[in-house]
Amino acid sequence: MAAAKRAVVALGGNAISLPGQEDTIANQFANTRRSLDGIIDLARDGFQLVVSHGNGPQVGNALLRVEETRGKAPVLPLGVLVADTEGGMGYMIEQSLMNRLREERLDRSVATVITQMLVDRNDPAIADPSKFVGQWYSADDAKLYSETRGWQMKEDGKRGWRRVVPSPIPVRAIAADTIRTLVERDTIVIAAGGGGVPVFETEDGKLEGLDAVIDKDHASAVIGQEIGATVLCILTSVESVCLNFGEPNEQQLGTVTVNEMKAYLDAGHFPKGSMGPKVRAAISFIEQGGEMVVVTSFTMARDAIKGAGGTRIVPD
Amino acid sequence: MAAAKRAVVALGGNAISLPGQEDTIANQFANTRRSLDGIIDLARDGFQLVVSHGNGPQVGNALLRVEETRGKAPVLPLGVLVADTEGGMGYMIEQSLMNRLREERLDRSVATVITQMLVDRNDPAIADPSKFVGQWYSADDAKLYSETRGWQMKEDGKRGWRRVVPSPIPVRAIAADTIRTLVERDTIVIAAGGGGVPVFETEDGKLEGLDAVIDKDHASAVIGQEIGATVLCILTSVESVCLNFGEPNEQQLGTVTVNEMKAYLDAGHFPKGSMGPKVRAAISFIEQGGEMVVVTSFTMARDAIKGAGGTRIVPD
Repeated sequence: MAAAKRAVVALGGNAISLPGQEDTIANQFANTRRSLDGIIDLARDGFQLVVSHGNGPQVGNALLRVEETRGKAPVLPLGVLVADTEGGMGYMIEQSLMNRLREERLDRSVATVITQMLVDRNDPAIADPSKFVGQWYSADDAKLYSETRGWQMKEDGKRGWRRVVPSPIPVRAIAADTIRTLVERDTIVIAAGGGGVPVFETEDGKLEGLDAVIDKDHASAVIGQEIGATVLCILTSVESVCLNFGEPNEQQLGTVTVNEMKAYLDAGHFPKGSMGPKVRAAISFIEQGGEMVVVTSFTMARDAIKGAGGTRIVPD
Repeated sequence: MAAAKRAVVALGGNAISLPGQEDTIANQFANTRRSLDGIIDLARDGFQLVVSHGNGPQVGNALLRVEETRGKAPVLPLGVLVADTEGGMGYMIEQSLMNRLREERLDRSVATVITQMLVDRNDPAIADPSKFVGQWYSADDAKLYSETRGWQMKEDGKRGWRRVVPSPIPVRAIAADTIRTLVERDTIVIAAGGGGVPVFETEDGKLEGLDAVIDKDHASAVIGQEIGATVLCILTSVESVCLNFGEPNEQQLGTVTVNEMKAYLDAGHFPKGSMGPKVRAAISFIEQGGEMVVVTSFTMARDAIKGAGGTRIVPD
């Protein structure tokens, strides 16, 4: 196994919970098992691997549970809830992956590492919360919670008002050394679930959590740089990145250079809430020295790396 | 630093949540910081360390949140909730410990590893659930949930009926190799929070979770054997193990051999719900080759190891 063949695989939130499907834990386990094909293929091809994953539906449910039981159980900050999902979802993915590896007679260990992601406390995103989290509220409740809980609220479509939190850029994974140590001995490391827990460094050098979330693809790009990964695989529900998505002139992208991708991004091809962050993370990974970012569906990772389907972003 | 100086420190549940104190996350963080004195002392003395912790109040709150939001958010099985607390509490302890280490100018990394604990699927404890979890219910509700949710219910004192789950003996930590690798490079590893997630091996060799809990001191003893720890420190709210606890003839134990301890246990000195499991875990650790188990308060670990206060259980 070549030591330098190293990849980070970022599993989209819909790897575990599917829109429109009843969100039970049995379905979450079943979806998780189905989402592992790409990881298994890369493991068989000899890649050393870090696996990250989204947590959108799960942390949304966690916030709902906390809010609905105020006064009966402690209110947990968003950072602790993200860490909870790193534990619970990490366990589900770890166990499912171990069972698949055993089934495929691949002798690889798996470990889940809780990941704090350092952000710059002067990141302008912190002063400008823009990421919706949790439930929808009426305008009156939004005003009330803004006053009583210090939440920042914004209108989110026709369903009402929601809490917004900052989504700062991750700078480094506090656990980078741990992750690298384990990857070097061929352990598949599950890390940065939900993007990891955002923390900043105080003036006296202490780590402190903040009520924010980190984009999991950006977190994956950072960890990829830190472990010397050449490939970042962003696995999601679509096979390729598209130009003019959903329009009659929609066009799937195959192999694209980072500068071409930047031009498409600037031209507004990628929606802010879905493909935009993935493309930004991809650009960042290549600009920091990565060799290839693949964006494709859960089962297509291996083919996409080889150029048969999916989208590849490569250096110029 | 001598490579063989290795200890597991098991933090009692009241390291993080104190009975009688309002259970807020701010208090949990503050309690956690105060509970780290013993760990810091051992780190300074050059011990390689694994830290485990209880999760009683936290997993109780998690169960309450899940039950109170049935129909609005997915019902999570106990194993996933335990893994959640491994993540969330692991994050709190990890961050607090990193900050203390930095303050004390101790150059040690810290990592939180999600821990599945293997149990024997034929463990007789599985057929005989005895550990209370979650809320108290009326006799009528107990009957209803027994029928509709398949829960086993028992009366718990005067407050009513509660769900009982098995507490099987842990056999090994699935993540033992990972934990050992990290400990060998001086990383302080937080593992087996809440005793870890109980899993068993199916007939075709797959791992599968079960609705049960594992005693965190037993889990710590097992991990101690697996990493070659000589010392197991069980830190709790009392300074020593006592004979005739709470009676006029109460007697604190200092240094006791494992056979003396077994005799005291058989004579009924240690209540099943509190000191009993700690003493059993201690006996198991020594019988498997451990050199010393210390049972004492959070601040007394170093003194107790040296024989100044606290209880030491040693081989005969």
